[in-house]
Amino acid sequence: MSKTESFDLKRYLEAGRKGIEAALDEYLPPEDTYPENLHKAIRYSVFSGGKRFRPILCRACFRACGGEGTSIMPVACAIELVHTYSLIHDDLPCMDDDDLRRGKPTNHKVFGEAMAVLAGDALLTLAIDLIVREGVRVLGNERAVRVLEDLLQAIGNKGMVAGQVVDMESEGSGAGAETVEYIHLHKTAALMEASGRCGAIVARAGEVLVKRISEYGLKLGLAFQITDDVLDAEGGFGELKAGASLDKRKNKATYPAVYGLQRSKQIAAGFIAEAKDSVADLGPGALPLLSMADLVIKRSH
Amino acid sequence: MSKTESFDLKRYLEAGRKGIEAALDEYLPPEDTYPENLHKAIRYSVFSGGKRFRPILCRACFRACGGEGTSIMPVACAIELVHTYSLIHDDLPCMDDDDLRRGKPTNHKVFGEAMAVLAGDALLTLAIDLIVREGVRVLGNERAVRVLEDLLQAIGNKGMVAGQVVDMESEGSGAGAETVEYIHLHKTAALMEASGRCGAIVARAGEVLVKRISEYGLKLGLAFQITDDVLDAEGGFGELKAGASLDKRKNKATYPAVYGLQRSKQIAAGFIAEAKDSVADLGPGALPLLSMADLVIKRSH
Repeated sequence: MSKTESFDLKRYLEAGRKGIEAALDEYLPPEDTYPENLHKAIRYSVFSGGKRFRPILCRACFRACGGEGTSIMPVACAIELVHTYSLIHDDLPCMDDDDLRRGKPTNHKVFGEAMAVLAGDALLTLAIDLIVREGVRVLGNERAVRVLEDLLQAIGNKGMVAGQVVDMESEGSGAGAETVEYIHLHKTAALMEASGRCGAIVARAGEVLVKRISEYGLKLGLAFQITDDVLDAEGGFGELKAGASLDKRKNKATYPAVYGLQRSKQIAAGFIAEAKDSVADLGPGALPLLSMADLVIKRSH
Repeated sequence: MSKTESFDLKRYLEAGRKGIEAALDEYLPPEDTYPENLHKAIRYSVFSGGKRFRPILCRACFRACGGEGTSIMPVACAIELVHTYSLIHDDLPCMDDDDLRRGKPTNHKVFGEAMAVLAGDALLTLAIDLIVREGVRVLGNERAVRVLEDLLQAIGNKGMVAGQVVDMESEGSGAGAETVEYIHLHKTAALMEASGRCGAIVARAGEVLVKRISEYGLKLGLAFQITDDVLDAEGGFGELKAGASLDKRKNKATYPAVYGLQRSKQIAAGFIAEAKDSVADLGPGALPLLSMADLVIKRSH
C-alpha cells in the first residue's frame, strides 16, 4: 500500500476524465448534425456524468507499457462509446427497464425507445469507425486491426452481449456460482480486460506484458462487478450505477446472492490482490494501475 | 435488353443464394453455442428465407471488376449480417412493430424483445468481426480496412441508422420529396452502394471503376426502395417485405405518397436506366449487373 500512497489518484482520474471528454467531444458529431435528435440522443448518454473508468484504465495500461503521447485516444474513446451503447440498450424497458442512470433519466425516457435502440446502434458503429479511421491514421493498419480483433471478441456473442443474455435469462432463477461468474466475466470483465489489453497493444508491448496487463484488467473487472453488486445489496446503489432501482436488481444473479456479503467482499479483495500482483513489477509506471485497483475495492469496504 | 436476354438470371441468383448461405452457415457459430438462445435467435433471422440480394450484388460487382475466386465471401456475408441486424431492430415493437417478416414471425415474436435487441447487436458485431478476421486473412490489412471504412460510413449515423431515424420521425407527417429521398438514400441505397463498392474494392478496381460501380449500386438501391413502396401501395407487399402490414406502412413517407404510383414507376425506371448506363461498357462481366437491374424494375411493372 505504501507504494501507492504517494500517488494522487483523485487528481489523476480527474485529469484523465477531462482529457477523455475533450477527445470524445472532438470525435463525436455535433448535436446540430442531421438528423439532430439522433445526435442529441448520442451526446446525451455519452456526456451524462460517467467516470470514464474504462478509457482511463486503457490509457493507464498504455502508459504502464511505455506508451507516450495521444495515440491511445481513438481506442480509449471507442471503448467508452461501446460502454455507452451497452448501457443504453441495457436500460431499455425490454431489458433492465431502468428509468434513471447516474441520477438522470435514461436515454429512452428522454428520446423514446426507438431512438434509444438506434442511438445504441449508431454508437457501436461510431466506436468501430473511430478505430478504423482515427485509429488507423495514428497507429497504422496492423495495430488498429489487432485492437479491433481484441475489442470485437470482448463485446459480441462471445463477450459482453453473451453476458447480458445470460444475466437476463438467469433473472429470478436462483442462479448458481458458475452462472454468476459467467455473467461477470462476459458482461463486465471482458471489456475491462480489452481496455487494458488494447492499451498494451497500442504501446507495442511484447506478448508477456500484454498477457499480464490482460490479467490485470480481467481481475479488476471481476472485482469491480462484485463490489458493484455488494454496494447494490447494501443499498448504496454502486458508484457507477447511481439510480438503478434496488427492487429491479433483487432478482439478478449476483455474488452477494450466491455467497453472501462478507464472502463476496473477500472474493473481490482476492481478485484485486491478483490484479495488483500481475503488474507489481512494472515499476513506477504501474502506480496508477495499483492505485486504481485499490480504489475498486475501497468502494465497498 | 437483348444483351441480357441470353443471361439466365434465375439460375445465377439461385446459385448465388446457395453459395452465400453455405458461407453464412460456416461463418456463424452453431446453434448449440452457449448461450444457445442467442445463437438460435441469430440463426433464426439469418436463415429465414432472404433472397441474399445484397451479397449477390456484392459478388456480382466483384466479378464485373475482374475479381475471381472466393475472397469476396467474408465481405459479402458481412453485408448480409448487417442487413439482418437492421431488419431485426426495425421490426421491434418500438420501431415498425411488425409481427411477420418474409411470412414468418419476426425475431422478437419468437425470442422476445430483449433477445431481439441483443441478437441484432451481436449480428452487427459479428459482421465487423468477419471482416476483421476472415476478411483480413484473405485480403490483407489494407483492403480489409478500406472495406470497413466504406461499410461503416454506409450503416451508421450518416447512413442506414440515420435513414431509419428520419423514416420514423416522418411517419404520419406528410413528408415531402426531399425527406423521402433522404430516407431512401440512407436507409436502403447506402448499403446497396456499399455492397457494390466493397465488391469493386476487393477486386482491386481502380478509382474510376469503383466510382461507376458505386453509382450503379446507389441507383439500383433507390429504384429498389421505390418499387418496394409501389408494390406495398398496390397491395403486393413487395417481394422482400412479404408479411409487412399494409396498414402500418400507410403513414410512411414513400414515393407513391409524394408522386403517385405512375410517376413513382417512371422515377424508378429512370434510376434503373442510369444504373445500367454506369456499367454498360464493362463488357460481358457486367451482364449479371444489367440483368439484376432489370429485375428490380420488373417487379413493379
